[in-house]
Amino acid sequence: MNVLLASTSTLFGGKYLEYITDEIKELYNGINEIVFIPFARPGGISHDDYTAKAKAFFEEINIRIKGLHEFDDQIEAVNNAQGFFTGGGNTFLLVKTLHEKGLMSVLKENVEKGKPYLGTSAGSNIGGQNIKTTNDMPIVYPPSFECMGLVPFNINPHYLDPNPDLKHNGETRETRIQEFLTQNDTKVIGLREGNWIRKIGNRITVEGDQETRIFEKDKEPYEIKSGTEL
Amino acid sequence: MNVLLASTSTLFGGKYLEYITDEIKELYNGINEIVFIPFARPGGISHDDYTAKAKAFFEEINIRIKGLHEFDDQIEAVNNAQGFFTGGGNTFLLVKTLHEKGLMSVLKENVEKGKPYLGTSAGSNIGGQNIKTTNDMPIVYPPSFECMGLVPFNINPHYLDPNPDLKHNGETRETRIQEFLTQNDTKVIGLREGNWIRKIGNRITVEGDQETRIFEKDKEPYEIKSGTEL
Repeated sequence: MNVLLASTSTLFGGKYLEYITDEIKELYNGINEIVFIPFARPGGISHDDYTAKAKAFFEEINIRIKGLHEFDDQIEAVNNAQGFFTGGGNTFLLVKTLHEKGLMSVLKENVEKGKPYLGTSAGSNIGGQNIKTTNDMPIVYPPSFECMGLVPFNINPHYLDPNPDLKHNGETRETRIQEFLTQNDTKVIGLREGNWIRKIGNRITVEGDQETRIFEKDKEPYEIKSGTEL
Repeated sequence: MNVLLASTSTLFGGKYLEYITDEIKELYNGINEIVFIPFARPGGISHDDYTAKAKAFFEEINIRIKGLHEFDDQIEAVNNAQGFFTGGGNTFLLVKTLHEKGLMSVLKENVEKGKPYLGTSAGSNIGGQNIKTTNDMPIVYPPSFECMGLVPFNINPHYLDPNPDLKHNGETRETRIQEFLTQNDTKVIGLREGNWIRKIGNRITVEGDQETRIFEKDKEPYEIKSGTEL
């Protein structure tokens, strides 16, 4: 497999996908057109506008982009595609749409055959086992929380360390993930912004500037360095 | 109806339910025993320990408490109860448990007959239309997101204003609720900590120290004062 799952599309103060340009070039090496999956976007901008935003970045690295929403037969479009990029937004909306259109399993099959896959945020969540560690609000009810399982764990994108100054009774991110582990025995990768997961063949590593926090059932959470194999 | 839906159980630096003691006394006026629903709690403390925590508070105001998990026939226990209190925790776990045990509709019927109901956090979420505006992580998959609908809107407990200093790409609470409104036409009450919703008969008001932020489809969010009818 050839997969890149990023915590975020955009670093604070940076441009869309800019911080990860070299890795994206390497991911899509030899490919000149990919399909963009805009279904996570719940509003603010249309699927067309969201696709145009991705197009602006990919033009600079000589890759054409077509939005999956533009195709009449979207299953055929996935089967014919050279590679994929799923953008962020709301994970529940993305997963509901992919399941209802019958696209989740088709996308999984195509990526497992070796077609390159890039996900950011919600697009990375669906590379994991299920969406039970998303940060998003459950604005729609999907027929299932199950995802592609391209990696044998769950991702928590935009992982955020507890803020000791916050005078507020809401749960921290760490508490939420620990609650997940009371109900599930699935490893969770707390992926800080600026970090990403890379799978080449069967080898999975975590990459980026910062350490990555790992959560496992009945274990203290621990940090791993960039480049560590998962 | 006789309902109190609070944003949180505990204010920063305060004791459990302390800030809302007078309102709880008024809610349960004339009642000496209630049933506590501990099912939102995913771990950390057991249902017994969670019930004991509630018991410690209610002893001081001369109300006995029994945990719903202690009963063999929980539907009968709800039908026989004088009043209810649902504590916070994880909303997905609470809703899954209530639906699977057939308790959601039974609880609704009993509260609609006039039995007093207190909810905090996840316990307040289930007084609304559905859990699509919870802040919790979807650690389990419930058979439905639908709730009791004791009030004709949704609640966002622990409502938090955007932090302009945060260098992080996750969505603000306001953005999340706006995303909900792209997919749903249900009013959302952004209930800051220290505030609560009170329903007596058919009259619903928002109460507490702070203003409350209201979100409606195709409208700018706006603030209402304590005491305003909803």
